Amino acid sequence: MIQITIIGSGNVAQHLIKAFTANKIIEIKQVFSRKKEALLHLIDSEKIITNFNELQPADLYIISVSDNAIREVSEQIPFNNQFVVHTSGTSSIEFLDPKNRRGVFYPLQTFSKNKNIDFSIVPFCLEAENTADFKILETVAKSVSTAVYSISSEQRKALHVAAVFVSNFTNHLYQMGHEICEENQLPFAILKPLIQETADKINTLDPIDAQTGPAIRHDSNTINAHLAFLQNENKKNIYKILTQSIQHNGKKL
Amino acid sequence: MIQITIIGSGNVAQHLIKAFTANKIIEIKQVFSRKKEALLHLIDSEKIITNFNELQPADLYIISVSDNAIREVSEQIPFNNQFVVHTSGTSSIEFLDPKNRRGVFYPLQTFSKNKNIDFSIVPFCLEAENTADFKILETVAKSVSTAVYSISSEQRKALHVAAVFVSNFTNHLYQMGHEICEENQLPFAILKPLIQETADKINTLDPIDAQTGPAIRHDSNTINAHLAFLQNENKKNIYKILTQSIQHNGKKL
Repeated sequence: MIQITIIGSGNVAQHLIKAFTANKIIEIKQVFSRKKEALLHLIDSEKIITNFNELQPADLYIISVSDNAIREVSEQIPFNNQFVVHTSGTSSIEFLDPKNRRGVFYPLQTFSKNKNIDFSIVPFCLEAENTADFKILETVAKSVSTAVYSISSEQRKALHVAAVFVSNFTNHLYQMGHEICEENQLPFAILKPLIQETADKINTLDPIDAQTGPAIRHDSNTINAHLAFLQNENKKNIYKILTQSIQHNGKKL
Repeated sequence: MIQITIIGSGNVAQHLIKAFTANKIIEIKQVFSRKKEALLHLIDSEKIITNFNELQPADLYIISVSDNAIREVSEQIPFNNQFVVHTSGTSSIEFLDPKNRRGVFYPLQTFSKNKNIDFSIVPFCLEAENTADFKILETVAKSVSTAVYSISSEQRKALHVAAVFVSNFTNHLYQMGHEICEENQLPFAILKPLIQETADKINTLDPIDAQTGPAIRHDSNTINAHLAFLQNENKKNIYKILTQSIQHNGKKL
């Protein structure tokens, strides 16, 4: 059994607790949370600690806190030469206090409180300072997922930027579609098959080959009609900029 | 049997031909294509016509051509008082020549040449000038899909704008993610589960409640690191504008 202690109680920490609880090769040793109540629905009360001095030995400490707290939390661990990783897409491995052996255990997925995740397809991006520690991370990651990658801090930064484009920004475009539907008494459900198909398509086509719509067709009549329809300045601006970007960077089919 | 003649040979026309060919209540009477070769892989040669004078009687004529050709094509039909519809998301029903009974048969989906479509979930947005004609469209649509809606020309215009946001623009964000991966020797496959989950999430959460990432967290350290990472001015600009839009129009979780 690999004994793991999780430090943090946010979305990622909670999803990891769920994934590890059902896992045969992992034992959750302890979980650190500033507020004990935050995790009582997930794990036995006696495993939840609220003070770093209560930390016991474990094979792996996973710090899953907001980026700007990683450094401070890693400094508060009252041990040396233990294996300590964070789960951040943005932070370098260097953010961790060098008094311990360092690594990164980054699950590349969007985690929401109210939606379960199928961890078996979540890509895990791993980094460690030595091969033995990398092996530990690899064993843990492979016990929950089939998609495990070795990714450097530099690559991880690029990946996180790419993830913001394809996930956070995409979801905001969904929000805009939702608003346009509501304003025009249309059910948002009518757009869902289109959203699904757009996401599915890139499994068989590169995005540049999957591009459709008035922008890539340089259909200026439709584009002008859409701009005239959009009263909201922010939506109009985003429509213009993304249309230009498609026309300058896309491939005419 | 409902006899249908399709005018056009583009993506939508070809997908409709495929859907109708496998259909028990529909007979494809004829298909008009400027070039006969374009459709020989889909339908018998003798059903393909290249001259409007060869058009025979049918219950329904579906014009599936580019928006700016709809009016001219509808004028070239050498009949009066027949039922003629177009398949456009943008064009008003008024674009059709009023010498015939008019309607709209708009399948709200993104059609690519090299990818099959599951028509059973494609929303069909229908409009007609009288109830009897609407019933014909409804029968045809329900024979291929379970998602059939009555949508006015005004609503359809709004829907098409919303579709551009959630599909065309979203795909362009996928392209940007793809480019960032390529530039950093990362497999694009690593982003696919995230893209899928982002699209799945809105089946259980409204997009505004599903928003995650540095913008909605107002995590300026990460945002600044991402902007510093992005060398491409276009990507940097889109990153800024969408981040601002999320912060002004989103809901802090």
